[in-house]
Amino acid sequence: MSLFGLSLGRLIEALCCLPGVGPKSAQRMAFYLLESNREGGQRLAQALLEALDKMTHCQTCRILSETDLCSLCADSRRDHGQLCVVEMPSDVQAIEQATNYAGRYFVLMGHLSPLDGVGPEALGMDLLAKRLDTDQIREVILATNLTVEGEATAYYISELAQTRGITTTRIAHGVPLGGELEFIDSNTLSHAFQSRQHL
Amino acid sequence: MSLFGLSLGRLIEALCCLPGVGPKSAQRMAFYLLESNREGGQRLAQALLEALDKMTHCQTCRILSETDLCSLCADSRRDHGQLCVVEMPSDVQAIEQATNYAGRYFVLMGHLSPLDGVGPEALGMDLLAKRLDTDQIREVILATNLTVEGEATAYYISELAQTRGITTTRIAHGVPLGGELEFIDSNTLSHAFQSRQHL
Repeated sequence: MSLFGLSLGRLIEALCCLPGVGPKSAQRMAFYLLESNREGGQRLAQALLEALDKMTHCQTCRILSETDLCSLCADSRRDHGQLCVVEMPSDVQAIEQATNYAGRYFVLMGHLSPLDGVGPEALGMDLLAKRLDTDQIREVILATNLTVEGEATAYYISELAQTRGITTTRIAHGVPLGGELEFIDSNTLSHAFQSRQHL
Repeated sequence: MSLFGLSLGRLIEALCCLPGVGPKSAQRMAFYLLESNREGGQRLAQALLEALDKMTHCQTCRILSETDLCSLCADSRRDHGQLCVVEMPSDVQAIEQATNYAGRYFVLMGHLSPLDGVGPEALGMDLLAKRLDTDQIREVILATNLTVEGEATAYYISELAQTRGITTTRIAHGVPLGGELEFIDSNTLSHAFQSRQHL
């Protein structure tokens, strides 16, 4: 990389930290920014510094937010009685875009993973338990991913809720809409069979 | 995007300017930088600002460089008699990594493309002509891409060189090493057939 100077090497190395970007794409990005779009590069650097400076976590639901209380938690029209627990902020965005859910959220920022040292504290379970105690929650909707860790996390939270007598639901898993049976992976199909429902 | 605040929206928009990055990947990158790797984000912003500030073009060969004269042009051990003309700085890097070429370079920063308003001036052809006049060049090696525009650019430069009585060569095109004939695209195969050489 020293062919073009140290600062280019450092830029390529820094771009490699982005998810899905390896040395070749990082090099392509660096050349593009320096050759064809310096204005875009300036804008990216500024936007990055601004976002890193301003974005923090909502103190109620742990979502990414510029303010102590995020726009969803601050919205008094949303139902306090429903609490949807998800793993990541992007899950909130997906649910907001796809459904008409009008309750509250709690973002774990991950899932239980003892081997990686991620225990209940790191996921803010104490904050969640406090909300279950103080907010008047009727239903906890578990929308963690259907992975081993996501399932374990959902189970842990269902225990928290059920000891407090709160209804707990899990979003449905099975064959996606428009999915053709022959192309569905066998785990999903097996799950869909076991969870079949009466018509 | 206003779900999480304006600065996140701006960051996602700015990331979209990178080649090969669409709104979904940009969102994933933004969440990753803000959630899991703030240090990497800071480093990226700093590296970007530093590179944009320091990187300029070599005044002799037009390659990206931190200094007025790039490390290749400043290296007195390299042969002044050979000049390899390429389209992009990444081409120089590829040639340096793959071959033991020890001559000089000239980087066009593109190819002739009259429809996009890219004429000889934009590619520094006047600078190239001056080098052909003043440097004692024995051979011009044309290593532009084998596209319509790359070929037209190579032809233009070969005219420049030949009117000055300088030998002009073009890098070989054909079936790549290890390439199996049945999987080679028909244009390449046709070209390889036409350019067959005596054993």
